[in-house]
Amino acid sequence: MRTHYCGQLRSAHIGKTVTLCGWVDRRRDHGGVIFLDLRDRTGLVQIVSDPQRTPDSYNIAETMRNEYVVKITGRVSQRPEESLNPKLATGEVEIYAEKIELLNALGKQLPFQISTAEPESVKEELRLKYRYLDIRRDRMTRNLQLRHAVVKAMRRFLEDEENFIEIETPILTRSTPEGARDYILPSRVNPAEWFALPQSPQLFKQLLMVSGMDRYYQIARCFRDEDLRADRQPEFTQLDMEMSFMSQEEIIALNERLVAHIFKAVKGTELPLSFPRLTYAEALDRYGSDKPDTRFGLELVDVSDLVKDCGFKVFSGAVQSGGIVKILPIPGGNEAFSNVRIKPGGDLFKEASEAGAKGLAYIRVKEGGKLDTIGAIKDNLSEDQKQEIIKRTQAKPGFLLLFGAGETMTVNKTLDRLRLVVGEELGLIPEDKMNFLWVTDFPMFEWNADEKRYEALHHPFTAPHPDDVNDLKTARALAYDLVLNGYEIGGGSLRIYQRDVQEKVFETIGLSMEDAYSKFGFLLDAFEYGTPPHGGIAYGLDRLVMLLAGEESIRDVIAFPKTQQARCLLTNAPSKVDDKQLKELHVASTYKPKSEQKS
Amino acid sequence: MRTHYCGQLRSAHIGKTVTLCGWVDRRRDHGGVIFLDLRDRTGLVQIVSDPQRTPDSYNIAETMRNEYVVKITGRVSQRPEESLNPKLATGEVEIYAEKIELLNALGKQLPFQISTAEPESVKEELRLKYRYLDIRRDRMTRNLQLRHAVVKAMRRFLEDEENFIEIETPILTRSTPEGARDYILPSRVNPAEWFALPQSPQLFKQLLMVSGMDRYYQIARCFRDEDLRADRQPEFTQLDMEMSFMSQEEIIALNERLVAHIFKAVKGTELPLSFPRLTYAEALDRYGSDKPDTRFGLELVDVSDLVKDCGFKVFSGAVQSGGIVKILPIPGGNEAFSNVRIKPGGDLFKEASEAGAKGLAYIRVKEGGKLDTIGAIKDNLSEDQKQEIIKRTQAKPGFLLLFGAGETMTVNKTLDRLRLVVGEELGLIPEDKMNFLWVTDFPMFEWNADEKRYEALHHPFTAPHPDDVNDLKTARALAYDLVLNGYEIGGGSLRIYQRDVQEKVFETIGLSMEDAYSKFGFLLDAFEYGTPPHGGIAYGLDRLVMLLAGEESIRDVIAFPKTQQARCLLTNAPSKVDDKQLKELHVASTYKPKSEQKS
Repeated sequence: MRTHYCGQLRSAHIGKTVTLCGWVDRRRDHGGVIFLDLRDRTGLVQIVSDPQRTPDSYNIAETMRNEYVVKITGRVSQRPEESLNPKLATGEVEIYAEKIELLNALGKQLPFQISTAEPESVKEELRLKYRYLDIRRDRMTRNLQLRHAVVKAMRRFLEDEENFIEIETPILTRSTPEGARDYILPSRVNPAEWFALPQSPQLFKQLLMVSGMDRYYQIARCFRDEDLRADRQPEFTQLDMEMSFMSQEEIIALNERLVAHIFKAVKGTELPLSFPRLTYAEALDRYGSDKPDTRFGLELVDVSDLVKDCGFKVFSGAVQSGGIVKILPIPGGNEAFSNVRIKPGGDLFKEASEAGAKGLAYIRVKEGGKLDTIGAIKDNLSEDQKQEIIKRTQAKPGFLLLFGAGETMTVNKTLDRLRLVVGEELGLIPEDKMNFLWVTDFPMFEWNADEKRYEALHHPFTAPHPDDVNDLKTARALAYDLVLNGYEIGGGSLRIYQRDVQEKVFETIGLSMEDAYSKFGFLLDAFEYGTPPHGGIAYGLDRLVMLLAGEESIRDVIAFPKTQQARCLLTNAPSKVDDKQLKELHVASTYKPKSEQKS
Repeated sequence: MRTHYCGQLRSAHIGKTVTLCGWVDRRRDHGGVIFLDLRDRTGLVQIVSDPQRTPDSYNIAETMRNEYVVKITGRVSQRPEESLNPKLATGEVEIYAEKIELLNALGKQLPFQISTAEPESVKEELRLKYRYLDIRRDRMTRNLQLRHAVVKAMRRFLEDEENFIEIETPILTRSTPEGARDYILPSRVNPAEWFALPQSPQLFKQLLMVSGMDRYYQIARCFRDEDLRADRQPEFTQLDMEMSFMSQEEIIALNERLVAHIFKAVKGTELPLSFPRLTYAEALDRYGSDKPDTRFGLELVDVSDLVKDCGFKVFSGAVQSGGIVKILPIPGGNEAFSNVRIKPGGDLFKEASEAGAKGLAYIRVKEGGKLDTIGAIKDNLSEDQKQEIIKRTQAKPGFLLLFGAGETMTVNKTLDRLRLVVGEELGLIPEDKMNFLWVTDFPMFEWNADEKRYEALHHPFTAPHPDDVNDLKTARALAYDLVLNGYEIGGGSLRIYQRDVQEKVFETIGLSMEDAYSKFGFLLDAFEYGTPPHGGIAYGLDRLVMLLAGEESIRDVIAFPKTQQARCLLTNAPSKVDDKQLKELHVASTYKPKSEQKS
């Protein structure tokens, strides 16, 4: 129907007659001359119609409204000197419309303007309900194109440079709830039995290694029926990879080349290789987080040894009961953060308290090295201890030192959170920096105090460090996470490939041999038939694209996302279904709305 | 861990020391010398160990068993003249194993041999249960690699040649059962409401056109909870495409380039363009099928006009009640098919009867032009009528003419089926031919006699032919199917993009405006906001790869397929789930096994 796309036209096309299709982005009338900005996926071009030069199109040009769908034929002309638009790729040309054909008009008023409204001015609820209009807006069009470019770069690298094969794994599979909740669906053919949607293709990709497929990847849809939190989606996409006969170092190096390839392809930037690394222990020690944002400093300082016997019970008690005391030293913090903000009721106190802290002790370093602090520190720490604190934190006049004291995870969580808030407020985080970091040597397990059992920190198929196999409970895992600017964008590990090791790990997390065999028998069996050493990684595609797009929510890089209430506002899914459907499936809803429940 | 893949090694590598990883495909002992065929995804290479040249590896080489996983280091050598193997890509070289490291042994006996068993000798049930071993076999490894190559060729063409963007559409969506049954799953967050898995991304891809994305594609997983038939899978994959501002001719031409690109990439063959076309009416007339296998002739001949008033009531009655009488003329059929096979109890009769036919009349043309036929024809057709039949069917001595008489669809179905059986038996179907065919001008609707209503032949979003809009019930659709060797591999259409037309189509299929709005309101709304003319197509990937691989079941080109009972024999999905899971979802099973049901 057309000869060119709008955004393609340049001065080289001048003199050519072209046919374009698209949407009227805007119509402007200038004293008898009508200008239309015609838009398609590639951009805008200016259409001109006036009663003298283009009498055939003028009458219809007058009836044009924003977002009408049209087909326009005309000759590409040089714009007059005074109307050149260097901001527009097509800004040197315009098209005299010989013919305008209306393909589709508007029957209703738009719920929001497409190109003239500020991106942020439209409520998200409205954007999601009319997602097909929202995507027409420049921001979403660019985000979806960026997402495509990222996936394309991934595929090209893996296929062309590294001989990976893409293999599809099932969406209808078996429920093996570990960690997150499964989405499950009833089988009609096998009544009273259920399929589950995969939380990841983990077991299938491992079996593909047993199959000798050697290098597998998939852009895989994954599903988790989680409680609704911040920026999660019931379904999300990961780049899923698995490789045989490779060491952790080889896998890390391959993934650095992959990430560099993606950045080169979509941003045109060369990432310096290799990426820095921290062990899990170091990351927690220095940043209080296993996914630290390393674009700025504000590193934490452990003073547990220094205060373990001091008179301030909050400090000494914390250390004596197995916890820690750490400091977040903030240059310029003295001026930036008043006592009101640190004390109960203040915003920093609130951050700390939401992370589990009971209080927020501080020391302020004044001009001349004088210290201003809370009474308990003043009274209970010796001058030597205070000076050692100043030395360790390298504090200078103007510094604010914030203390965390208590159970180790709580202290780390508190100071991690404060570090990010403070870094942001002080403008210490360079927006355009892309800081990658490998975090390695994760522990195999963490203690779940609620369920009184060990849980796999990654998943129970992660291989233990060969030096640590004698005490699995405290063993390090051969696991590696890739962190970008404080977000975990990828996580992987070498896998267990021996049946006895896998059985020991199941035992450690409290899975009985009977349960293990009933859920994972096929995997345990597979280990008996020639399973190669293997490992892999998975990247959260939504989050990676979000970071590359500079967006703050993954919903802005997904074509048709769900809300935080797990609904699609466009199609209104989920919905009621016919009783006939439920009957055929041999299931019934047991839900009683509150009003129907007996008190 | 390795320096090379097994299948890569050539005489150019002679003298190099290499490290390989893989599986022991076979071990052979030849008078103190041990030969191991080492296998990885790329192929086999011969490893040699003997007590003199490689004393370090000999002891371990002796312990090797089939399918052990090993790492082998050694020097690439020229094979002696007498052991060159021109059938093997690596057949000029062998590797003297300096070091053999056992990475994983076998703990159990293999359920079937990997490389030495005949592909067909292993029961499918066993193959599916141990799919990870089945995939290790050459045939499945090649099939999965071919599947990857096909998908890769599709992507490259669409992205690089035609500027398509890949966009992911939701798997958790809304139930709109039309035709096939939806898979549905309960929402925990929105109790008593259900998500459905998509039967295709149809509505989302149309909305992406409303969004101005212009050219969309996706390798899309689709789901249909169908009754179990021949070669279907609960989940299957299609190449899904949609385009704006293109005519049917433009879409067909683009798709011919796509298919030619795929064949060039994976088969190295140049397909002659353009593909032949038949209208739906012609296809049914000449072949009795809307997806005829055009690799061979045996075209049908309609003689309804000729016999409509004859004395044989089976013929005249069929025509008078709106049906037809058609002939399948079979050169050489006289000798090949005895009367026993045509009469009740015979295999041809059985085929006909399974297609709905009540009987199978015939005429045999003997030497000299004499006719041998059933009494009813002999008695009730005039000599002129018989001669006209001979003339129309171009029958010569040796021909067998098989008759179908009755309701049109039944006659076509019967003769289509017989044509394929007969063509196969007579060796008329050239195995290596790839015959593409477009079938166009489908009717919009077909009458569903059971439900006493019109049904959309494709789907209710298909655009009617502009010449036929005044009587939708009998209108042709702007729809086109791509047929390869008798299989429908692709189906598409231009779509409705105007609200009034869409409403009329819903009305025609008996969908009330209320139901239409409740199910498809978002689509009807979208038509009001500037929907471009658009159309698309979807290819059944599994079937296309099956045809390219020369397989007879799509299960052989899917990594982890379900059985015909919709089960996964590997993971044993579907399965029972914990009561806790059902409780959280507010659902219960209502299934009572027969033994528990009261009589």
